[in-house]
Amino acid sequence: MLVKYSPATSCAFSSSSSSSRHHCYHYRSHFACAPKTSPFTSWVLRTAESSLPSRHVCVRSSMQDDSASSSHPQEMMTTHGVSEIIIGVLGGGQLGRMLCQAGSKMALKIVTLDPIENCPASSLSYQHVVGNFKDGDAVCEFAKRCGVLTVEIEHVDAITLEKLEQQGIDCQPKASTIRIIQDKYSQKVHFSQNNIPLPDFMEINNLASAEKAGELFGYPLMIKSKRLAYDGRGNAVAHRKEDLTSIVNSLGGFEYGLYVEKWTPFVKELSVIVARSRDGSTLCYPVVETVHKDNICHVVEAPADIPEKTKKLSIDIAQKAVGSLEGAGVFAVELFLTQDSQVLLNEVAPRPHNSGHHTIESCYTSQYEQHLRAILGLPLGDPSLKTPAAIMYNILGEADGEEGFKLANELIGRALNIPGATVHWYDKPEMRKQRKMGHITIVGPSKSVVKSRLNLLLQKDVTVEKQAVTPRVAIIMGSDSDLPIMKDAAEILTSFGIPFELTIVSAHRTPERMYSFAMSAKERGIQVIIAGAGGAAHLPGMVASLTALPVIGVPVKTSSLSGMDSLLSIVQMPKGIPVATVAIGNAANAGLLAARMMASTDSDLWDKVTKYQKELEDTVLLKAERLEGEGWERYLNA
Amino acid sequence: MLVKYSPATSCAFSSSSSSSRHHCYHYRSHFACAPKTSPFTSWVLRTAESSLPSRHVCVRSSMQDDSASSSHPQEMMTTHGVSEIIIGVLGGGQLGRMLCQAGSKMALKIVTLDPIENCPASSLSYQHVVGNFKDGDAVCEFAKRCGVLTVEIEHVDAITLEKLEQQGIDCQPKASTIRIIQDKYSQKVHFSQNNIPLPDFMEINNLASAEKAGELFGYPLMIKSKRLAYDGRGNAVAHRKEDLTSIVNSLGGFEYGLYVEKWTPFVKELSVIVARSRDGSTLCYPVVETVHKDNICHVVEAPADIPEKTKKLSIDIAQKAVGSLEGAGVFAVELFLTQDSQVLLNEVAPRPHNSGHHTIESCYTSQYEQHLRAILGLPLGDPSLKTPAAIMYNILGEADGEEGFKLANELIGRALNIPGATVHWYDKPEMRKQRKMGHITIVGPSKSVVKSRLNLLLQKDVTVEKQAVTPRVAIIMGSDSDLPIMKDAAEILTSFGIPFELTIVSAHRTPERMYSFAMSAKERGIQVIIAGAGGAAHLPGMVASLTALPVIGVPVKTSSLSGMDSLLSIVQMPKGIPVATVAIGNAANAGLLAARMMASTDSDLWDKVTKYQKELEDTVLLKAERLEGEGWERYLNA
Repeated sequence: MLVKYSPATSCAFSSSSSSSRHHCYHYRSHFACAPKTSPFTSWVLRTAESSLPSRHVCVRSSMQDDSASSSHPQEMMTTHGVSEIIIGVLGGGQLGRMLCQAGSKMALKIVTLDPIENCPASSLSYQHVVGNFKDGDAVCEFAKRCGVLTVEIEHVDAITLEKLEQQGIDCQPKASTIRIIQDKYSQKVHFSQNNIPLPDFMEINNLASAEKAGELFGYPLMIKSKRLAYDGRGNAVAHRKEDLTSIVNSLGGFEYGLYVEKWTPFVKELSVIVARSRDGSTLCYPVVETVHKDNICHVVEAPADIPEKTKKLSIDIAQKAVGSLEGAGVFAVELFLTQDSQVLLNEVAPRPHNSGHHTIESCYTSQYEQHLRAILGLPLGDPSLKTPAAIMYNILGEADGEEGFKLANELIGRALNIPGATVHWYDKPEMRKQRKMGHITIVGPSKSVVKSRLNLLLQKDVTVEKQAVTPRVAIIMGSDSDLPIMKDAAEILTSFGIPFELTIVSAHRTPERMYSFAMSAKERGIQVIIAGAGGAAHLPGMVASLTALPVIGVPVKTSSLSGMDSLLSIVQMPKGIPVATVAIGNAANAGLLAARMMASTDSDLWDKVTKYQKELEDTVLLKAERLEGEGWERYLNA
Repeated sequence: MLVKYSPATSCAFSSSSSSSRHHCYHYRSHFACAPKTSPFTSWVLRTAESSLPSRHVCVRSSMQDDSASSSHPQEMMTTHGVSEIIIGVLGGGQLGRMLCQAGSKMALKIVTLDPIENCPASSLSYQHVVGNFKDGDAVCEFAKRCGVLTVEIEHVDAITLEKLEQQGIDCQPKASTIRIIQDKYSQKVHFSQNNIPLPDFMEINNLASAEKAGELFGYPLMIKSKRLAYDGRGNAVAHRKEDLTSIVNSLGGFEYGLYVEKWTPFVKELSVIVARSRDGSTLCYPVVETVHKDNICHVVEAPADIPEKTKKLSIDIAQKAVGSLEGAGVFAVELFLTQDSQVLLNEVAPRPHNSGHHTIESCYTSQYEQHLRAILGLPLGDPSLKTPAAIMYNILGEADGEEGFKLANELIGRALNIPGATVHWYDKPEMRKQRKMGHITIVGPSKSVVKSRLNLLLQKDVTVEKQAVTPRVAIIMGSDSDLPIMKDAAEILTSFGIPFELTIVSAHRTPERMYSFAMSAKERGIQVIIAGAGGAAHLPGMVASLTALPVIGVPVKTSSLSGMDSLLSIVQMPKGIPVATVAIGNAANAGLLAARMMASTDSDLWDKVTKYQKELEDTVLLKAERLEGEGWERYLNA
């Protein structure tokens, strides 16, 4: 299959004959190809048809691949850099663009095929070929340039991919995966056969079957096109039987290929990016929540605010779904979370996805680098978050043309003023309403911080005070009679600018409330809990037994035993359930301790805490100076 | 100065007439230029000489610029995206390449000038012009393409830049800055005149003045070329008077322009990247430590392990140094830290710098994006760390040619297996010994983690157990008699895989040791301190008063008062100095509490802590089952 090919060819096609990189090719254009001497032996896929303009072309994977080329060690040449395999990407939209950006760090060679000459990826790819990824001839011709072929859109010619695979072309993910996924109905059938939970669905071929579906599933009824549906296009809702005919017609009629889905009243939409290597091992990115507006992804929050067991369930389903498909790469698994905590599969994309844009700034390895690692047979990278929280906001065209550009530019202007915000602009030549023109990712030390920054972005005035901030600390107390003590913790947190919540939770009088408070705290973004209690003070210990968050206990002074009972109840916890206990009635120290705990990984806060400590010292030194200066008698009388 | 120019021109120079982007131009090549109709009015700098192949060329800044063009609002067009100003970069090495990568996120248009056609930046720039940045004519011609002109190397033709500035070309930083910096002697004179502390130096013109310098400064004596010195080239050390002639000759002789510097026996080399906006405001990146090997940057550690006051001093000097120069952009200020805690300026680079590579993965805004923001007049981004720690390792050629490529590829192979590691490869066509071919940045949740990962990278075997790990927790006790209690904390931390240090520090018997321990803990990477003490247990409180780190106190049981004395001494701290107190003798809970504190921002650790908690529950449930099954009598007897 591998044909040795030396020397490498180079296309002389411009007035500058040696500028052999980063040009745009029109499919079926003919260039005069002149051989170019290369210092290295190169490998190409198919000698006879080759018209490769690149310097070194290899199809062998450098690290972990199962490539047959290892049987010819004497013919191998050293890999220069990370990999010299030419990666072909069908599609050149923003996902292709971001693949090129990820590849450029490692100097990977990515070639793109897209019908649009100045598509987003065109300016960043090693070569951009103008041609249609739905056109079998164009795809075949393009494949000759590539050591591995992948997609950034699933609506490509899958039949041709299957043919190419039979000819030995390395497609990742496999053509079978693309074929299953690009037809939404066959996707549902496939996952249903693989026991993945998903909403009920059925094919409809005529009005009778549509009416039958309405009877079975009830209304509203979701009617969908099988193919070429994205961003809500190809979906429509029938609210009653009488709507069916018009809705079907609006989708192109039964002959277009339709199916229905039972209406799923979800409480959240979730997404999991799953990376699979060539050897079949998988790694999952943290579960995120996707917020759609008019059926288009609007905001993505990472990590999702859901209970741990929902996270586990989501990841299990996502891994199982991806496990049923073939080939390497990243896959986005979109999920519905229902009121009764069920997780249902919505759909799968066999490629990087809008819900994973945030990974560029927030994760150790971005979904784009991960996709490239996976398809090249390199080891998968760490998919975990390197920042505690991230929010992605899509820059959608708000109007056509210049007005749209103006509004986008204003949004960008605000984003550039927001700490932790990164602006991505896809360089699409035309602005249209609802078109994805770019995105903004905000990362930060906590969910509350990134949410408040998103609010600043959208309020269109960054000087506005922070609003709707998610708390990082919870202050709870057994009774409102503890408030005059516990307010000191609130004051300290306020002085450090740490958002907190403050409420009454009683271990003895509201046990259920205590349970749900403690169990949900981590998911709500709480990092530290301060619990004040007096007498047989069970609250701090009980809360500490229900969450793995650090709990600070404040013993409240009692009239009978001066708080000694509270102190011993709080501090003398059994092994396994620690409570960080402070002095009796000293809620200020509890606030300070919370600040210290968070400051060790938050440099802004660290500066504030050390400044506070310095001021304490200065206060004492000032008093000492006054005492020494005035003498003790005047000092005492002052 | 601004001349309206419409329609925009486009070069038809290849068989594909409309592929107007990302081509390589040879300086002085002539292309047939055909007018191309543009839907927008465009601005170019200089109509008459223009031969711009780009689609939209603007010289106006979009956000905060002081551009005069705002006086013609009716002629302004909407900015598409972030900015449409063409950014010209003199030099196309790896720094130019990474500028292009940062610019590509925002779809900024960067053109590069470099004599090498396939230089690292060439494949990523909007246009690459082949020409010498030391050649005045080439620079003048190149400047016509640009809305703003900047550098990625200071050894450019500064005289021409000054001339261009007089003609109204926008150079950032200013030509005056380049001129001062490119001559190391004039740089020293400049900073000395601006009262920046730096090692003693003097010009040498002949053997007599060299000998005079030797008498004044003593030996070893550092002799340096004034110009074109980098990575240790142009520097040599005379160890005694007799060496002078041969050393001077090795540097090209006195006529080449030499000066001497007093030998500085530094303990660390530090670097601060300072960003300055067009309005003169500055922001500093965290101080980093640079480790050189054979005069070439080898490793960069962020943040530097130095006391807070040294950080402040370094930042003050860096800001003052940059404040004495003109123009916008990022500047790297290299510093020496001496044994007596003095900070001296070594040299300044008026551009992104090797010591700031880590910012791509570790900071909210990378030095490259920051440089682009600064020169375009956009708001500066947040320069702070978004990950607690980062280490950058330069991939230097270990051998010439294929052997060097092979060794680099092996290093990369190990890096791809290390979590948090990102590989950058500069795509330099030739491998040479000691050449900077790429770099690897490792980010992680703590300094100890990234250091141990670097060890894995360099040990050439990633399966080897972690070694030389920097501790994240310190366990201290007043006396070795507390060890049988305190070992429980060590066991818990070990079970969670948290590296820790354990030692004896007594508040009463080793007060100085306690002071230096507490003051250095944060800088050494410690995140939580666990202090055990019995009786009049002052250690936890004293340590908490000396550091802003969270301190957990373990009261050790005493014979006379069963530890009640210890408990009250530890927990009853005054306002301002919190100690997180656990139950008497319960060091296990102290270890657990430390784990909980760190787990809220470390998802791996969070999983371990929740798993531990689940196991506690399971243990009790198992016992309940046995008790119910066996009955209480058999249970008691078992």
